[in-house]
Amino acid sequence: MSEFFPTVASPIPYEGPESDNPLAFRWYDADRVVAGKTMSDHLRFAVCYWHSFAWNGFDIFGAGTLDRPWVGAIDEMAAAEQKMEVAFEFFEKLGVPYFCFHDVDIAPPGSDVGETVDRFRHMVDLANGHMERTGVELLWGTANLFSDRRYQAGAATNPDPEVFARAAAQVCECLEAVHRLGGHNYVMWGGREGYETLLNTDLQREQVQLARFLSLVIEHKHAIGFDGMILVEPKPFEPMKHQYDRDVAAVTAFLQRFDLLGEVHVNIEVNHATLSGHDFQHEVAMAVEAGIFGSVDANAGDDRLGWDVDRFPSSVEQMTLGMYEILKGGGFTSGGCNFDSKLRRQSVANDDLFHAHIGGMDTIARSLLAAAALLEEGELAVAVQHRYAGWETEFGRQILTGDVTLNSLRERASSVLDPIPVSGRQELLENLVNRTIERVR
Amino acid sequence: MSEFFPTVASPIPYEGPESDNPLAFRWYDADRVVAGKTMSDHLRFAVCYWHSFAWNGFDIFGAGTLDRPWVGAIDEMAAAEQKMEVAFEFFEKLGVPYFCFHDVDIAPPGSDVGETVDRFRHMVDLANGHMERTGVELLWGTANLFSDRRYQAGAATNPDPEVFARAAAQVCECLEAVHRLGGHNYVMWGGREGYETLLNTDLQREQVQLARFLSLVIEHKHAIGFDGMILVEPKPFEPMKHQYDRDVAAVTAFLQRFDLLGEVHVNIEVNHATLSGHDFQHEVAMAVEAGIFGSVDANAGDDRLGWDVDRFPSSVEQMTLGMYEILKGGGFTSGGCNFDSKLRRQSVANDDLFHAHIGGMDTIARSLLAAAALLEEGELAVAVQHRYAGWETEFGRQILTGDVTLNSLRERASSVLDPIPVSGRQELLENLVNRTIERVR
Amino acid sequence: MSEFFPTVASPIPYEGPESDNPLAFRWYDADRVVAGKTMSDHLRFAVCYWHSFAWNGFDIFGAGTLDRPWVGAIDEMAAAEQKMEVAFEFFEKLGVPYFCFHDVDIAPPGSDVGETVDRFRHMVDLANGHMERTGVELLWGTANLFSDRRYQAGAATNPDPEVFARAAAQVCECLEAVHRLGGHNYVMWGGREGYETLLNTDLQREQVQLARFLSLVIEHKHAIGFDGMILVEPKPFEPMKHQYDRDVAAVTAFLQRFDLLGEVHVNIEVNHATLSGHDFQHEVAMAVEAGIFGSVDANAGDDRLGWDVDRFPSSVEQMTLGMYEILKGGGFTSGGCNFDSKLRRQSVANDDLFHAHIGGMDTIARSLLAAAALLEEGELAVAVQHRYAGWETEFGRQILTGDVTLNSLRERASSVLDPIPVSGRQELLENLVNRTIERVR
Amino acid sequence: MSEFFPTVASPIPYEGPESDNPLAFRWYDADRVVAGKTMSDHLRFAVCYWHSFAWNGFDIFGAGTLDRPWVGAIDEMAAAEQKMEVAFEFFEKLGVPYFCFHDVDIAPPGSDVGETVDRFRHMVDLANGHMERTGVELLWGTANLFSDRRYQAGAATNPDPEVFARAAAQVCECLEAVHRLGGHNYVMWGGREGYETLLNTDLQREQVQLARFLSLVIEHKHAIGFDGMILVEPKPFEPMKHQYDRDVAAVTAFLQRFDLLGEVHVNIEVNHATLSGHDFQHEVAMAVEAGIFGSVDANAGDDRLGWDVDRFPSSVEQMTLGMYEILKGGGFTSGGCNFDSKLRRQSVANDDLFHAHIGGMDTIARSLLAAAALLEEGELAVAVQHRYAGWETEFGRQILTGDVTLNSLRERASSVLDPIPVSGRQELLENLVNRTIERVR
Repeated sequence: MSEFFPTVASPIPYEGPESDNPLAFRWYDADRVVAGKTMSDHLRFAVCYWHSFAWNGFDIFGAGTLDRPWVGAIDEMAAAEQKMEVAFEFFEKLGVPYFCFHDVDIAPPGSDVGETVDRFRHMVDLANGHMERTGVELLWGTANLFSDRRYQAGAATNPDPEVFARAAAQVCECLEAVHRLGGHNYVMWGGREGYETLLNTDLQREQVQLARFLSLVIEHKHAIGFDGMILVEPKPFEPMKHQYDRDVAAVTAFLQRFDLLGEVHVNIEVNHATLSGHDFQHEVAMAVEAGIFGSVDANAGDDRLGWDVDRFPSSVEQMTLGMYEILKGGGFTSGGCNFDSKLRRQSVANDDLFHAHIGGMDTIARSLLAAAALLEEGELAVAVQHRYAGWETEFGRQILTGDVTLNSLRERASSVLDPIPVSGRQELLENLVNRTIERVR
Repeated sequence: MSEFFPTVASPIPYEGPESDNPLAFRWYDADRVVAGKTMSDHLRFAVCYWHSFAWNGFDIFGAGTLDRPWVGAIDEMAAAEQKMEVAFEFFEKLGVPYFCFHDVDIAPPGSDVGETVDRFRHMVDLANGHMERTGVELLWGTANLFSDRRYQAGAATNPDPEVFARAAAQVCECLEAVHRLGGHNYVMWGGREGYETLLNTDLQREQVQLARFLSLVIEHKHAIGFDGMILVEPKPFEPMKHQYDRDVAAVTAFLQRFDLLGEVHVNIEVNHATLSGHDFQHEVAMAVEAGIFGSVDANAGDDRLGWDVDRFPSSVEQMTLGMYEILKGGGFTSGGCNFDSKLRRQSVANDDLFHAHIGGMDTIARSLLAAAALLEEGELAVAVQHRYAGWETEFGRQILTGDVTLNSLRERASSVLDPIPVSGRQELLENLVNRTIERVR
Repeated sequence: MSEFFPTVASPIPYEGPESDNPLAFRWYDADRVVAGKTMSDHLRFAVCYWHSFAWNGFDIFGAGTLDRPWVGAIDEMAAAEQKMEVAFEFFEKLGVPYFCFHDVDIAPPGSDVGETVDRFRHMVDLANGHMERTGVELLWGTANLFSDRRYQAGAATNPDPEVFARAAAQVCECLEAVHRLGGHNYVMWGGREGYETLLNTDLQREQVQLARFLSLVIEHKHAIGFDGMILVEPKPFEPMKHQYDRDVAAVTAFLQRFDLLGEVHVNIEVNHATLSGHDFQHEVAMAVEAGIFGSVDANAGDDRLGWDVDRFPSSVEQMTLGMYEILKGGGFTSGGCNFDSKLRRQSVANDDLFHAHIGGMDTIARSLLAAAALLEEGELAVAVQHRYAGWETEFGRQILTGDVTLNSLRERASSVLDPIPVSGRQELLENLVNRTIERVR
Repeated sequence: MSEFFPTVASPIPYEGPESDNPLAFRWYDADRVVAGKTMSDHLRFAVCYWHSFAWNGFDIFGAGTLDRPWVGAIDEMAAAEQKMEVAFEFFEKLGVPYFCFHDVDIAPPGSDVGETVDRFRHMVDLANGHMERTGVELLWGTANLFSDRRYQAGAATNPDPEVFARAAAQVCECLEAVHRLGGHNYVMWGGREGYETLLNTDLQREQVQLARFLSLVIEHKHAIGFDGMILVEPKPFEPMKHQYDRDVAAVTAFLQRFDLLGEVHVNIEVNHATLSGHDFQHEVAMAVEAGIFGSVDANAGDDRLGWDVDRFPSSVEQMTLGMYEILKGGGFTSGGCNFDSKLRRQSVANDDLFHAHIGGMDTIARSLLAAAALLEEGELAVAVQHRYAGWETEFGRQILTGDVTLNSLRERASSVLDPIPVSGRQELLENLVNRTIERVR
């Protein structure tokens, strides 16, 4: 096949901050060592099929705009094969170590379960070949349990148990494929696992179903020997009015309740975080604290818009604060940074997909450098340590672990001088962060 | 003392839907039996000191507007006594069975701990007298751990353990007073328990502190034999950027993690629910499901405004859906419906506080009638039951409790016809709700 | 052709508030006279093709769910004819006096301009026949200038003048068709008239283009003798990041600047109003004040969601306040109330489209009754008049029209007693509105 | 008087990007020439009294935290004098060329109009002395028409004309003082000019009153020979539910309608822009286009919070896009960049006010450098010019100014090939902006 991106040299080079070449990285230098690891090992970038190859630019008000000749083609399997060649051409030219897919992204569903499975297995075999050829690995795979109309009322949480079975079949097949491809993680995005209206919903029952589904997946993972993470992806709403995996706190409550902590981790999307009313760094920090941090979907949003914009990240300021929490939490293990970002619908030039990914990768690489500097210089950590120093005194420790009561504390309060409030130093610390970002080189 | 509300007859009568008297109830008929209990027993209305008597109408842009002569008075204790007389005059004239207070609402802090305690105990004694005289009971009391500048960085979550001790002292004193007054619940509103910026915050440490504080309160509650509920009040933000008790899911995760389920329940505010991105009914349903539903703060919001408006509820449509979830969950036990609502700053007429409460109580009473009718007529319940009927078949039960695997479900899916999606009937059910609301009499 | 809605009797009867028949109107009684006009003449209900017949339930995450066999059919023109028969079957059975369409809703674009025009004219002829047969009239028509990929960067505001010309051609054809069909209004919805990013946008140039386009439409309207209103539909964003017709104030500024006041009016959508941060009633009041009120798109939103939900209206509380402003402003002239509302994606039962419209029409009919009662009883008007009474004194009039200066007012202020604030009576008035809604019969 | 900020050297030095001194500027180098003017002349920084000296850190939930000994002092005039000395100590040490004030910020109201005027004039005289002594000039002054309870229902839009007169008196006095002090602009912030509920509001009447008020101010301005700008400050809500000066578009509509264009300009606040649903750069661009751009209030917000946070700006990414529009529009004339920003309530250290202003000034200075580079390098401008090139062809010009009709365009469309959509290049341009920000030195 001829190249789909003929004007792009392979691979995108690193040229450093002074380069004016829009088709070069200025910050992402895969082999540069930062805080003990290469950038590549830190960030584990992955390109997703979904918005980059399976979406043609349509929106709810209009038709596709992007040149994706395989979308809607008559010969679906030939189209799927072409799509895969183009995708791997892109992965190679961009120079990312990982990719991701939904089952239906790589293989069109057939007319019955048998044909669907055959098609999928065929495409997985082809993917295997491309992976061996290019060295690109699979960060995660996932089954699409939301696009088909049978999932209109959810998959695991569907009122009809036969739909649950269909979804189970799909995940079973996809999980095994991910395992066969040496995938590093398996994602469950519960796009329709939620409700449109409480009037027709049995909240309790649906959550029991969802937990049961997750348990079956975990059992199967262990049965087949897959040792990647099972990841859920918090999102507050859209397409549903309310989604059960609303935010990290909701996921934590759910996992605790159904005794799934330790078996399930989260894939945090920047834009899902902000839609749920949280800063990205908050969701990371909450996940690290709960021990469920897994991976990151780097799609960012627009703070003036109330839906999932899924744009490529471009704010170093936003991503630095998130990367700082990630590094503080120990960084990625099997997870990584995936882009399931959307080009803007008007970005119809052949190389726009490169500009988008280069911009996103440079944004995050630069954020990694800033976050690593913040961590290394340690001023933030010292400020925090200093702020809570009282809790390291005997009295502080005694409160948390000793034999105190409200009564004994009341006596203490009566006999000790009223504590004097001290500054939280927020503006000073914000200036420090800005200074660190500026200096990144 | 002369009356503060001289133009209002005592008490506000129930005159029924046809009344044009703005100082009569049209819907709240205390002794009317609905679904097996009187309205009064169902709703357990309480008036709060805080916004109704301790706030003079100031906002962040301007001075007080309301006639609250005790605010800022030189003789603080005389003012506190006058305030209490006026408050009880109001409770009696309105005919509510309960009231609520923060410690500093009823007694001004003194110049040291000793004087503060003396003043508080004196005012509690006076409250006791008023309660005996009027028959008004205490729905809940709470310690204000957010207004004093020493709590600028939180009470339990303060970086300084001495502030923790101060807060403990205050709660100890207040909890004992609530117990002495026969209070039905004790509330912990964590107004400053959260953070302004992650840059200076140890998220993990602060939550451990908060859990420790709650445990101490629970221990003390048991020690003194108080058998009311300990209630926390979810709120996403304001005054802090992020509050740990963000929503019911976050509270659930927190209580589970620190093994406090069963000991702590939630006081759900309508406006806090909507600020956190949830419908009121969602938060009730989530709390019922988690077994932590306790009480309701009926303050409503404005869907165009992004802060806590705390207006008196006036939407029967909104409150009906919430009351339906409350009734489905079994209704209030020790909790109730409190108004900690704010008059509008321009509502400076002497009787505006009556109009506001009458409107709020009628709104909720009418919602109770509609919710009870929905429950009694049972069409919603039948629709839900019917929708999930498949889960009551052998196959459905087997999935949840039997010996199935992803594999066995894959086989099932291959051999069973693809399930046909059925309508969620949302518009039909919404029409049913509207019809029920219309017919309330 | 056999009926598409075989289970629905024709037409939906009015059975009154006591009816339990979900396929009957409880409030919309077409011939009932309210405030001097029939309900039908007041409300001028119209069903739109767009979401009800041209949309199959797809969303950005999934495929269509609704039974719309003409969507995607091979024989496009046969499908268009079938769609039209079904649409008119629905209009008749529902008993609405009006319908609305986009050009592409009724006729699929052809392979070139000539074929497109031929197809459209053919379908317009068919529509004419259906209209004569059924008596259903056209409330408005519009050209879809946003779905085709050529409009990705706007139609009138496109950077390419050839796209402007295409759009002009489309509007020319559609406007003439609307005129031929005796349509009452012509709508311009500027779905892509706005920008995605200022970085590539010439804000000033685009607005000049938009104004020029509107002027050409107005000239053509007069040239062909069409005397309906030209309506624009304010919306803040979606699909674009910013739309020039953001809200009534933005439209007003635009029309004033380009001297188009008097020639262009607004079609206010309930959900667009709330997305732009305004209550529906605010947008109506602003439009009435500016003299540009035209018509209403009754699609409502969900206050927890940040995109255009376009649900059928079900809140009498919300619609009453809007209807009150409409009636105060004199009511509709050539405009009316259209539903361009979407079924929920799960509402796949054949009769759901009826339940949705019946619910929406009853909601608005009941709101009309409440609004008319508010107006007739006059208490709100008296309260407002009383509140501003000072401006009807000599001093008040003198300020507005007389020979005063800041200086002379400074003197006045020094010599007159400080005015005493009076209550805004908001809670009292809210209770009054609720009382009025309750009593509607 | 002894220094209030004893630990801060005078003045804050510029030390350049490599400095680690938190009490030095890294970017704001007053005399550095950028794009033909010094930074100081470009930015015209001003410190405001309001939040920095007149606010003690109180919020709606709690008492003041900041050390502002003059707040609530018994001897109000001595306190006002002390406050002024401290303010000028701060202005001088920070090294800003301008300050701003509300009348009540510098002088406490007296017990009657006469005493209020006397106090104000006395403090204005003192200010005059401080200004002469320090060389600090007045960017703008304003009368506070929102804090006093008499303004609870607005000043110019009050239902009581006597309140209008009071407001007029206050503005008359304040405008004359600003003129006497050589002030560069006069601001009208309509904090209470709006409504809480339409139920009690005559929208039309209130806007007529507001326009009349503005006219009187303009007449007085000309009468006394003041040649600074009259500035209004758009804000969507808070304290009111709806404010008439909602956003730039609403102000434009208002000024057009009442023929005040040319006489009134806008002071755009970053946080007000975002609260109204707009990016800061959008509001600047709209104001430039309408010819009403005046000045900037640099207070920024928090995208997760729905109220006016008024934090010091710290995002170079946000401010660069705004500065770019400002520079494109020709930059400031009499306006400038004022900080009416609030310290965080916990920022109680004596030097926090310096850190906050230094951070804010460096953020904006760096943004100026980036914006100037964007403008100088011209790539954005070229991209835009190229994008709209078709409108510079004969056909493009003819559409806008020539003798075309919908009909003639229809003919054109039939005979010309369908235009091919081209890329909007958004991701490429975003990368360009980021590259430019990175390189700023």
